[in-house]
Amino acid sequence: MIGVYDSGYGGLSVLRHLVEALPEHDFVYLGDSGRAPYGGRDAHTLLDFAEQAVERLFEEGCGLVVVACNTVSCVCLRHLQQRYCGPGSGRRVLGVTIPGAELAVSIGAARVGILATSRTVSSGTYVAEIHKLDPTVQVLQQAAPLLAGVVEEGWEDSEIAELCVRRYLDRMPPVEALLLGCTHYPYLAGALGRARPGLRLLDPAPFLARRLVEWLARHPGFVTAAEPPGRLRVLCTGDPQAFAEHGERFLGARVPPVEHVAEIDGRLAHADPAHAPKGQIVRPRRGSRWPGSS
Amino acid sequence: MIGVYDSGYGGLSVLRHLVEALPEHDFVYLGDSGRAPYGGRDAHTLLDFAEQAVERLFEEGCGLVVVACNTVSCVCLRHLQQRYCGPGSGRRVLGVTIPGAELAVSIGAARVGILATSRTVSSGTYVAEIHKLDPTVQVLQQAAPLLAGVVEEGWEDSEIAELCVRRYLDRMPPVEALLLGCTHYPYLAGALGRARPGLRLLDPAPFLARRLVEWLARHPGFVTAAEPPGRLRVLCTGDPQAFAEHGERFLGARVPPVEHVAEIDGRLAHADPAHAPKGQIVRPRRGSRWPGSS
Repeated sequence: MIGVYDSGYGGLSVLRHLVEALPEHDFVYLGDSGRAPYGGRDAHTLLDFAEQAVERLFEEGCGLVVVACNTVSCVCLRHLQQRYCGPGSGRRVLGVTIPGAELAVSIGAARVGILATSRTVSSGTYVAEIHKLDPTVQVLQQAAPLLAGVVEEGWEDSEIAELCVRRYLDRMPPVEALLLGCTHYPYLAGALGRARPGLRLLDPAPFLARRLVEWLARHPGFVTAAEPPGRLRVLCTGDPQAFAEHGERFLGARVPPVEHVAEIDGRLAHADPAHAPKGQIVRPRRGSRWPGSS
Repeated sequence: MIGVYDSGYGGLSVLRHLVEALPEHDFVYLGDSGRAPYGGRDAHTLLDFAEQAVERLFEEGCGLVVVACNTVSCVCLRHLQQRYCGPGSGRRVLGVTIPGAELAVSIGAARVGILATSRTVSSGTYVAEIHKLDPTVQVLQQAAPLLAGVVEEGWEDSEIAELCVRRYLDRMPPVEALLLGCTHYPYLAGALGRARPGLRLLDPAPFLARRLVEWLARHPGFVTAAEPPGRLRVLCTGDPQAFAEHGERFLGARVPPVEHVAEIDGRLAHADPAHAPKGQIVRPRRGSRWPGSS
């Protein structure tokens, strides 16, 4: 099985391309929707979340995990690879940043823009990866903290989306092409097109799918085709019903019954959302440095 | 000193009212901007963050901590009180939920709306607190995940703000008054007024300040007036420069030099933001269950 990890719904748009390119495989998708958005979070929180997510996917039987989330790919990918994918481990974690950089360079543009989350922009990873391939490409980054939320609300075709997109693009000098550095942004293609007619939009997802097909051909037997093929399981940390409803738009197909996982003692484990706590929550006392504690 | 804790900038709007009501006291503000927004987070993550924040404020010398954040007040307040504020501890943690509920009931309306984050809504705490005071009040909640982000961007007076506000209010049946259940929302008063002319808006912050003055009068000597009075320190977990720039709007005054704190070994400690990591981050190996790890 191939695991796909994202901060929320957005990665389902990547999964869609992967399923089309690799119909003979089974997939397990983990969307950390209960803790999304990731874009403004500090690096060590992201490392914690990324460790929990890939460990859950390894435990579900995935030898190969694709990190669809740009923020995690930019900040945590090397850590995940070093921590889990040593020689003989039989595990691989692949990200979206290198395929994205390859796509940005492949079009031969002199000035490429990147629209992304704050954390992706501040990491500088896309700029570094593009310059490894071609140091002459001028890269202009723009953080767009609201855009993922606009798509999560299902408002991608609204006037709100277009106004937000205009405000962010107005902060960026003219570019020949714009790399969509967040899995939510392909859904804003309409709003982006109305705001900047003729601007070439670069979606890393189809490029990532082609790269994955090539990678599997170079590593025969690493992930075996399933029998019967094409099963899909979906796990999320948020509301499973809302995830299935919203997710259909991203996946372009009906989302199978969504399994709920939650952080329990620092790990993501299956949990019954009906048991989610309500109201005030009091945790049992642990060894406390605070005299006068209960 | 009085500590004020919020997930980010929003609580500075509460601090503003507290400073006006209690000019003879010193304040320490802690904004967890590096890990905001809190509104979509799971309950146990919120408990961890809240413990770290109030412990930092106790260690700064605050005997009294006001939780300005509605989400933390709704989910974590009882835990914080039981854990840190036992008899003889000399510590108190007060939240915004009970003053908010008192305000909602005080106006004598039959139908009150609450606009808040997803987590505040799902906790049901505001509804429970209002019904403790008056079980006949009909309470209608509406989650508004995008609104805090709109204010964080400084777009509260834009058409975007008004369109978002309209969409959220359209999901709510008519109400006589609307409780602003997030510290960011008072900044949307203009947009809310244009979307629903004549709708009465209830901001818990001035009410909380009056309640705190009364509480201090009932507990003489609990927090002593400072000499000289009126000092303010501001700590944040995100970018201190951005915090000072954005924060001025919320505080209505110049923000003093912002001190950076970061999570180090599970606690919030002072840290030099110049050492914030860039690019890919690799954490040292801890005891690993994963054979083949580096």
